[in-house]
Amino acid sequence: MSKSTASGYFTEADSAEVVTARNADAQNERLKQVMEVITRHLHEAVKEIEPTQEEWFEAIQFLTKTGHTCDDWRQEFILLSDVLGVSMLVDAINARRPTGATENTVLGPFHLPNAPVMENGGNICRDGKGEPLYVHGTVKDLNGKPITGARLDVWQANDDGFYDVQQKGIQPDFNLRGIFESDADGAYWFRGVKPRYYPIPHDGPVGQLLGQLGRMPYRPAHLHYIISAEGYDTVTTHIFDPDDPYINSDAVFGVKESLLGKFIQVDDPEKASQLGLENPYWDVEFNITLADHT
Amino acid sequence: MSKSTASGYFTEADSAEVVTARNADAQNERLKQVMEVITRHLHEAVKEIEPTQEEWFEAIQFLTKTGHTCDDWRQEFILLSDVLGVSMLVDAINARRPTGATENTVLGPFHLPNAPVMENGGNICRDGKGEPLYVHGTVKDLNGKPITGARLDVWQANDDGFYDVQQKGIQPDFNLRGIFESDADGAYWFRGVKPRYYPIPHDGPVGQLLGQLGRMPYRPAHLHYIISAEGYDTVTTHIFDPDDPYINSDAVFGVKESLLGKFIQVDDPEKASQLGLENPYWDVEFNITLADHT
Repeated sequence: MSKSTASGYFTEADSAEVVTARNADAQNERLKQVMEVITRHLHEAVKEIEPTQEEWFEAIQFLTKTGHTCDDWRQEFILLSDVLGVSMLVDAINARRPTGATENTVLGPFHLPNAPVMENGGNICRDGKGEPLYVHGTVKDLNGKPITGARLDVWQANDDGFYDVQQKGIQPDFNLRGIFESDADGAYWFRGVKPRYYPIPHDGPVGQLLGQLGRMPYRPAHLHYIISAEGYDTVTTHIFDPDDPYINSDAVFGVKESLLGKFIQVDDPEKASQLGLENPYWDVEFNITLADHT
Repeated sequence: MSKSTASGYFTEADSAEVVTARNADAQNERLKQVMEVITRHLHEAVKEIEPTQEEWFEAIQFLTKTGHTCDDWRQEFILLSDVLGVSMLVDAINARRPTGATENTVLGPFHLPNAPVMENGGNICRDGKGEPLYVHGTVKDLNGKPITGARLDVWQANDDGFYDVQQKGIQPDFNLRGIFESDADGAYWFRGVKPRYYPIPHDGPVGQLLGQLGRMPYRPAHLHYIISAEGYDTVTTHIFDPDDPYINSDAVFGVKESLLGKFIQVDDPEKASQLGLENPYWDVEFNITLADHT
């Protein structure tokens, strides 16, 4: 029973090296590098786990079911990436910023291009449903200088936890979406509704895995932002409600401490009327700091 | 910008720990352990690769296509496991044996239960196609003692590289399959045909990946064996033809040095006639050593 690797034949000890050596002729250097890393970690993981043949086949079946759950409307592999923290990690790697700059979080699947461009103060809630929310803040650079003309693309789920695209015919088109621009002082403000937590799709293999892991499928309440301004790094992020019951168990790990807003209930009929909101209403301030684009 | 992990919120540095901490309530300890290892290696791999968002999405699309290629007849994720050497690694982990015992290799997808039980010397080639092959050897224990009544379940592709189940209606049922039993001296012998290399299915995403990696989709010529005897560890293995053009590039890494047979062409009309074969014919000896079942 030879264990020689000179032959290039498979041995348990040198398994990853044998596989990687076979990819020597790959034309694309990046692919070759990626496959080396994947192969090495995959073999290390298998060696640590020492799966039985039955466990290996369970893994094959899980991946197969995950693939079969994907269609034009459902992306179960992205969901798997999300609940394993991989989507957040890839986002973090691609959005490293200096301390003090607003942090990124995942984009999520519900962004629409071409939301209505609105004036500051406008109401993105187009069906009057939900508890009124007043959102305001500033866009500044890392030196505290206001940024004028920054574009704030915002979207959110309604108070039942659904985005417009999930409830076509129930919610008006572009409900709870709008694009705003920061003013001469870097300020922006708009009206929306208090968001609510909602589950990620959990009737597939990924939801089943979450259940087996003792995890909940919920994302805590949040508003989405994409903030862009010429010369600055575009920020894709959320503000989260720290009082949400799932704030410490976001199924996709999107929460960062710097992204916790402070949702304050205001009971002030005069101010409400000034803002064009019913009393009482919720107030949240979210100030954004953009880093120079490098 | 807080980097605290006490909160349990996601940070790039502690990404794997944050995800794993979330699985603390998993009921099944084995699942919890497996997920810890997978999460750790997955995050380590992502941190080494530093994929762009586009590369991450390419990976998502590759997995999705692999899933969509799976049906009742095609298992593209097993194929992926095969070409990454994972199937061989899992086999190796589950079939560790003392030095001197016959080594395992992958089962492959073409084994059928209930092949015909045949007398030693029988011909598993039921359509007379291909170059005749005489296979013989012994089954012994680690002390060299012959094992009587060992069951040898053998199967092979024909000289076009197809198994009977891949050519229903073209090859007879159970063509090139048979079950033999070792005799009082531990000997077994049968007639078959010289096998030929064949490609794994390569018209899907896994075949495309192989192409990008500069690899061929071929498996070198081999005969399959499952050898079992009461009290001994069952061996699932192949014998390979060392002269096959793909012997050093088996797409699934199944080749081990100890499994290389010696296929000798014999030109001896008398012996051929004795064995019931056309002259010339091929001869291969494959001696099997079984380890005690522990």
